[in-house]
Amino acid sequence: MPTANHFTSIEQMEADTARLRETACEVCAETYEDRVKAQTPHCKFGEDGICCKNCSMGPCRITAKAPRGICGADAHAIAARNYVRSIAAGTSSHSDHAREILHVLKSTKPEGPYVVRDEQKLIGLATEWGVATVNRDIYDIAHDVADVGLLEFGKPDGIQLFTNRATQERQDLWKSEGIQPRAIDREVVTAMHMTHMGNSADAEALIRQGLRMSLANGWGGSMIGTEITDILFGTPTVHTTEGNLGVLEHDMVNIVVHGHDPAFSEMVVTAAEDRELQEYARSKGAKGVNIVGLCCTANEVAMRHGVRMAGNFLQQENVILTGACEMMCVDIQCIFPALPALAQCFHTKFVTSSPIARIPGAIHVEFHPDTAFEQAKTLVRDAIDNYQNRDQSKLFIPETKQVATVGYPTEQIIKHLDNITNSHVDELGSYRPAIDAIKAGVLRGAVAIVGCNNPRVRPDYSHFEIMKELLANDVLVVASGCSAQMATKAGLLNKDAKYICGAGLRRVCELLDIPPILHMGACVDISRMLLLATGIAKDWGVGMTEIPVVGCAPEWMSEKAVSIANYVVSSGLDVYLGIEPQVKGSTQMMELITEGTKKITGAGFIINQDPHQLVKNMLDGIEAKRALLGI
Amino acid sequence: MPTANHFTSIEQMEADTARLRETACEVCAETYEDRVKAQTPHCKFGEDGICCKNCSMGPCRITAKAPRGICGADAHAIAARNYVRSIAAGTSSHSDHAREILHVLKSTKPEGPYVVRDEQKLIGLATEWGVATVNRDIYDIAHDVADVGLLEFGKPDGIQLFTNRATQERQDLWKSEGIQPRAIDREVVTAMHMTHMGNSADAEALIRQGLRMSLANGWGGSMIGTEITDILFGTPTVHTTEGNLGVLEHDMVNIVVHGHDPAFSEMVVTAAEDRELQEYARSKGAKGVNIVGLCCTANEVAMRHGVRMAGNFLQQENVILTGACEMMCVDIQCIFPALPALAQCFHTKFVTSSPIARIPGAIHVEFHPDTAFEQAKTLVRDAIDNYQNRDQSKLFIPETKQVATVGYPTEQIIKHLDNITNSHVDELGSYRPAIDAIKAGVLRGAVAIVGCNNPRVRPDYSHFEIMKELLANDVLVVASGCSAQMATKAGLLNKDAKYICGAGLRRVCELLDIPPILHMGACVDISRMLLLATGIAKDWGVGMTEIPVVGCAPEWMSEKAVSIANYVVSSGLDVYLGIEPQVKGSTQMMELITEGTKKITGAGFIINQDPHQLVKNMLDGIEAKRALLGI
Repeated sequence: MPTANHFTSIEQMEADTARLRETACEVCAETYEDRVKAQTPHCKFGEDGICCKNCSMGPCRITAKAPRGICGADAHAIAARNYVRSIAAGTSSHSDHAREILHVLKSTKPEGPYVVRDEQKLIGLATEWGVATVNRDIYDIAHDVADVGLLEFGKPDGIQLFTNRATQERQDLWKSEGIQPRAIDREVVTAMHMTHMGNSADAEALIRQGLRMSLANGWGGSMIGTEITDILFGTPTVHTTEGNLGVLEHDMVNIVVHGHDPAFSEMVVTAAEDRELQEYARSKGAKGVNIVGLCCTANEVAMRHGVRMAGNFLQQENVILTGACEMMCVDIQCIFPALPALAQCFHTKFVTSSPIARIPGAIHVEFHPDTAFEQAKTLVRDAIDNYQNRDQSKLFIPETKQVATVGYPTEQIIKHLDNITNSHVDELGSYRPAIDAIKAGVLRGAVAIVGCNNPRVRPDYSHFEIMKELLANDVLVVASGCSAQMATKAGLLNKDAKYICGAGLRRVCELLDIPPILHMGACVDISRMLLLATGIAKDWGVGMTEIPVVGCAPEWMSEKAVSIANYVVSSGLDVYLGIEPQVKGSTQMMELITEGTKKITGAGFIINQDPHQLVKNMLDGIEAKRALLGI
Repeated sequence: MPTANHFTSIEQMEADTARLRETACEVCAETYEDRVKAQTPHCKFGEDGICCKNCSMGPCRITAKAPRGICGADAHAIAARNYVRSIAAGTSSHSDHAREILHVLKSTKPEGPYVVRDEQKLIGLATEWGVATVNRDIYDIAHDVADVGLLEFGKPDGIQLFTNRATQERQDLWKSEGIQPRAIDREVVTAMHMTHMGNSADAEALIRQGLRMSLANGWGGSMIGTEITDILFGTPTVHTTEGNLGVLEHDMVNIVVHGHDPAFSEMVVTAAEDRELQEYARSKGAKGVNIVGLCCTANEVAMRHGVRMAGNFLQQENVILTGACEMMCVDIQCIFPALPALAQCFHTKFVTSSPIARIPGAIHVEFHPDTAFEQAKTLVRDAIDNYQNRDQSKLFIPETKQVATVGYPTEQIIKHLDNITNSHVDELGSYRPAIDAIKAGVLRGAVAIVGCNNPRVRPDYSHFEIMKELLANDVLVVASGCSAQMATKAGLLNKDAKYICGAGLRRVCELLDIPPILHMGACVDISRMLLLATGIAKDWGVGMTEIPVVGCAPEWMSEKAVSIANYVVSSGLDVYLGIEPQVKGSTQMMELITEGTKKITGAGFIINQDPHQLVKNMLDGIEAKRALLGI
């Protein structure tokens, strides 16, 4: 029976990183650890959120002797404005990504390169959005759905269509609180306007716009992104795959796809399967082409193709440091601008593909839907040509890797639940079996663990510790983004991880044939988690704040995470954070994000840097919700 | 014959401010000057633009020992991202303001409170935008025009409609350079996405998005704002008015309207004219109600009603310090959050009216189009009731004021030019007479002086010095925003200012019966200046970069100004800045904003803190353009 020893420990991961840093030292390259040292200590004003750069009278900083900026803005106004601008950038990122995916849907045609892969989901969405489907060509429907989706960003009137999917109590609350999300882009622009010099100085008014804007992300941009990606590339299903640096191969051409938008990486994956290119690789002395993923692009292609995952955010330099990466193709978001310089210390070709993410020193191949497949084939060929340039003296691929079972969108979870439902007695397509398990106490509840890793804390450690403890306490975990990849690297997505679970959760895993941590996708797919929680609340017949389900981002780093955390709170679920939002220079803001939002949405942040304490907080929170439900 | 001595000197303005600061001292209130002292020295990293707060791994700061942030972003990437976010906030502000004005247009009905005042302009715009006009009710047309305008913010396809108004060479250049502005909100969201952690690190790519987004402001949001405001409240015409603190009255109820969006202030102005309320004021011992304007709201109501102007941006505290302000009604933008606390030291009621600009300590009366007039009347009545609460011991109204002639939108300028056109020989409605004067050398050229004032330099001094020197050198000045108000306070909008002009400009002023500085409106009305320059270029038959016309913002402060400066440069006109954009920690950014944009748009920034040197640069630039034209 496997025990915790069968998992890859943080110490092992750190040992691999340490070995790769030796290579970095040899080639005179720096890594993020070096830069963290150089950047420490951080500016306290920035950390506390009380530095304002919103006009050229400043910058201003709040101190005891200077309690107001030149315009008179105090710590609360400044921290709130900075915070809202973070949400604006995060909302923009997920949403603009979704817009690009809609443009790809608009480009679909039967002869490709982009086609409709999930016709059922398309028909469902068309019906939901009022697009005619009867006797129509699937591509005409697809293009009309794309048009409706694109209008969600800029329609002059009305609120986000997907808010209809929420529980009635959420819809009512958003309306009564005045935070129903209008057009996605409008919410961002209004927030940027409110935070301009000489506008809002009231922290609560700013927080409310932050919540509203975040809803335009969760129930707008992100959800659109997820739905359309499924239509284009297929709704994910269960795949067994592997994760960590050991997925790089000594005798194959290694191509890493990195970023967040799968539109281009899907083409690279398909191109690499091309028989002619595989043959070409063999002609160059390699056994074939090995595509591996990094960051959220990895999650996207793993869930749809079983493509193996080299690692998460802070692993991006390690991949190049192996000396075994012939090419890294990046799309958007969370890509270190440090990578081109690092790639130049090796033979690695570093390729950018999006006008959104131009990085000096990169080879830029701007991806266009019509030519994407041909562009991808050319890149794979270039990578193959580059195989011979590997410098064996710099080569070191850690052997560490783990088997993982991935691909649990809500549809897949429902399938597993249907398998144990007696269809003569109960209806299929329901979360009722899971609810029954929670009611019975076999499961205590569920936690969505999400978010990046961050050198402010020991990378991956909090994710790992929190996951292990939750599993031991019979709490089911759903994970996405870099958190899901940490679980992959650790081996926690292996079905054998049931052996470190409490007896209740273990029984559930066996019955459903699932690992105790369900991989739900990329960070944009946290929209899937919203629908999961919504489905549970609806099938339970209670409100979102009542279910023993919470969110947790122990090592979050990006502005996207700030937006996500806000839409989860707006959706009624408490969020447990291991990194403090940068507002602690304002007592009012600290109150607003923890207790204040509870008065508006019924949920708030609970913040603790100690992962063990954070788990305790979470378990207490879950048990408190159970007590209120009388279970 | 008046000389420079007839004008109000900076020293006189400063003496008034010093006297009012004594009052501040007596009531234990602080003013911006105190806060400037407390905030000095400013953070050098912020001033140089090389502090990054775009993710929670940081904040990071660039130094010789730490040349890259934790992600690897260098000084160029960081400065460019910060700069582009400034443009995003500025673009959002002007544009979101325009959106609100469109909503007001949507609310118009014959019985008011909001009606269509300039039917001719509405019909013209409807025709331009393809809205049917024949045999239609004017309000149906207005509502359809509002709908087209609102779609400019979020339409999924196409570029800003008003770009059709630009010269053909601009339209061609914007297309070939890939900076045609798409939907306004989209450009902001794309910019916020590009500047998110792990996206664009290439300064030029960021600058290009900055230019594109700024065009969505100048030829989108701002121009829409101006056009619709004219339709709603009338296209401005010439009014004689007065400016500076002396416009506050000892024996009247003083109500100050402050901000930028005239929708509410128009109602306040109208309400104050109500006979019953004037009577009520007299019943309370006042001679009547005296509405005065501050900041750009002042420009709006001065140009349409001759309402007198109490001052510009840095005068906002002085108005309250007179002790004679019964009420200050603010709308949006550039409102010191310091004001409510200051108002509480006096009897002044401080009223906010927009959800965009909530300020703690204010009385909040959220303005709604349908009830705006009734809300305004209630406020005027409250102000009258407050008259008796004036504390005579705190009262000091400086006597300083000047007569000003304001209200020169392009339509008015054309009227003046038509007056001297021989309609038997030349066509009317042309800028040709002005062009002929420039060709003949009677006028050397024109400068648009715009922007805020800023305590980083001696407030108003640069505006004043630059204006005087340009006039003496036969350069016509058009002004808007706080710059126009400085000219008002100084007396430079008085037609007698012709006596400090060079002989050529003086002759032009006499012939056209205009002051040598033409007041064109609020900062959103810099769109009028774009149309003026475009009209000159078209009638001349040359490109925008060729005409001897430039922009100048000697004391700019806000992010709106950064956006404006960029759309002016994108429109082909050099911009002379007296305050450095906060990017000087990046040599690449400094090169890009000065020389780099010239390669893209044909224009760039020229930066010099010394106003005399800046004038010299401007005159050299104008003469160089003249030389290229062979005149």
